[in-house]
Amino acid sequence: MPGAAPAKRPLLALTRGDPSGIGPELALKAWLATHLDPDAPPFAIAAEPGHLAALAKKLGLDVPIETVAANAARVVFPRALPVLASPYSVAGKPGAPNEEDAAATIASIETCVSLVYSGEASAVVTNPIAKEVLYRAGFSHPGHTEFLAELALRFFDVTMRPVMLLWSPELAVVPATIHVPLARVPALLTRSLLVETGLVVANDLKQRFGVETPRLAFTGLNPHAGEGGAMGGEESEIIIPALAELARSGVAVSGPHPADTLFHAAARRSYDAVIAMYHDQALIPIKTLAFESAVNVTLGLPFIRTSPDHGTAFDIAGKGVADARSLIAALQLAGRLASRSCQAA
Amino acid sequence: MPGAAPAKRPLLALTRGDPSGIGPELALKAWLATHLDPDAPPFAIAAEPGHLAALAKKLGLDVPIETVAANAARVVFPRALPVLASPYSVAGKPGAPNEEDAAATIASIETCVSLVYSGEASAVVTNPIAKEVLYRAGFSHPGHTEFLAELALRFFDVTMRPVMLLWSPELAVVPATIHVPLARVPALLTRSLLVETGLVVANDLKQRFGVETPRLAFTGLNPHAGEGGAMGGEESEIIIPALAELARSGVAVSGPHPADTLFHAAARRSYDAVIAMYHDQALIPIKTLAFESAVNVTLGLPFIRTSPDHGTAFDIAGKGVADARSLIAALQLAGRLASRSCQAA
Repeated sequence: MPGAAPAKRPLLALTRGDPSGIGPELALKAWLATHLDPDAPPFAIAAEPGHLAALAKKLGLDVPIETVAANAARVVFPRALPVLASPYSVAGKPGAPNEEDAAATIASIETCVSLVYSGEASAVVTNPIAKEVLYRAGFSHPGHTEFLAELALRFFDVTMRPVMLLWSPELAVVPATIHVPLARVPALLTRSLLVETGLVVANDLKQRFGVETPRLAFTGLNPHAGEGGAMGGEESEIIIPALAELARSGVAVSGPHPADTLFHAAARRSYDAVIAMYHDQALIPIKTLAFESAVNVTLGLPFIRTSPDHGTAFDIAGKGVADARSLIAALQLAGRLASRSCQAA
Repeated sequence: MPGAAPAKRPLLALTRGDPSGIGPELALKAWLATHLDPDAPPFAIAAEPGHLAALAKKLGLDVPIETVAANAARVVFPRALPVLASPYSVAGKPGAPNEEDAAATIASIETCVSLVYSGEASAVVTNPIAKEVLYRAGFSHPGHTEFLAELALRFFDVTMRPVMLLWSPELAVVPATIHVPLARVPALLTRSLLVETGLVVANDLKQRFGVETPRLAFTGLNPHAGEGGAMGGEESEIIIPALAELARSGVAVSGPHPADTLFHAAARRSYDAVIAMYHDQALIPIKTLAFESAVNVTLGLPFIRTSPDHGTAFDIAGKGVADARSLIAALQLAGRLASRSCQAA
């Protein structure tokens, strides 16, 4: 029954990201790749229609653009890219970001969160932003995720602890610490950090991903997970007590495991997600296994948010060579998670 | 011409390793898997013939044992496992190591190195030892590799800097620091360590592996390789100066690269080996990609030494379930490297 089904599908609200990066190009390519697929979730982008139309023309991409209100986006999606029009214009050029665009970049994120708050959209998918460009314009949040937590407070009136999950069909992994120098990692690892992270991951794997009893595998910090204390004490002092506390809270945990032997195919069958102690310990295995298709999912928010697992890529912006697979995977996963939420509601 | 070809093949000298671990079982299984293959390198194990015969009987492995001198091993190999007999007996039981066996464990390593020194064997392949068992018996070297460096000095009268390379068909990777707590890694990374490591790796990839102009890719220490100093200074203070020094010495280097995006299939085509800054940064990708077939190669020694990339596995010793793939891969690689050396000599 064409015409009926699309109206029931969740609508995704896609942010524009930095207009001088690859985000707008990825949005055009993602629409081309998915608009005729009845199983792909429809999305609308909060952006400038004229900028997108000019970019499509420049890149030779046959993407009709239609300015819509959110409630019309599902119907428009099969024939045109629905754009939730922004009142701004774009100052930056591809590869040459301009801080005059910062206000619109931020407004696009706010628009998308407001649409999930109002129920007009079911999930937020974000294109990459460049923090340094936003900083120059006065943006005061450490990053994208922290800004979303601020919007969660502003719109939903809840204080949440956002947790970054990297997801692919092969592996789901959470870094307990993220964008800090390696030398600072040991001091930043605390029992409460690991316990709070574990609780958020277990809760969201259950609520959002539908994993009935999520199994969380924790890495050690040190080689061979410290080898019983011979190579570092953080396992016995911090990680093992945190795992005991999580187990007492009813979370199915294992570890600390030596990180090097935790990611081969047989080991991956023993858990639903890994909680790693630092950035590279989490990101190396997933980007080795699923470089083009890993998706960044923010857990611990009052709404679903996914994003492609890459940056603005200013060096290739405007050239037509950007690979939309990670954004498409982010849209697909958001759609899948949103469908679950719709069914549950 | 059967009978002629085997005599020209390099002979590998295999150590016994801890007799209570899986080493002896792996040797039996490796012989079973390779003795009829004319392309597989023949090997002789320095061990106790009666212990091996009893183990074969217990495990139901049809492996004839023949005590031989090294110069007869090639001829014996197709019909029986050649054993370079040790005067010791075995005190430990499977899974229950005994420090009374330490002297024989050490003597087996010495025998194998002496055979490559005398030219009777072409390479050393080592089975896993348990350092803590040897320590209780007075062994004073930090590990297997350091003991081999001591034997290099004793037999070959050269002081060498051994460097551990993990090798698989998919990836070759060297950890610049190895078995130390993660918190100590930043202080242990020095420009001279990286330069010396790079020189050894470049030299041995050329001399032993036959890579004409080895391309070495260095990781950064910090997330995103420090992102221009925003997340750590070791890249600009230590790694970049070391790379500049190596480049001045004529070594083809690149980096420091973000470690997470260095190991997917496309990236792996851009280098011959990665030099990573610490254990998990090197071991996670190779064990994720090649868990059963990774081989440990010691570079910087005056002889070829490989070993399987696992430990004594006391928990499964004597049960017949040990997987010999890594030892077989270690024997194959040693044979390949030794054949090159034979041709070069």
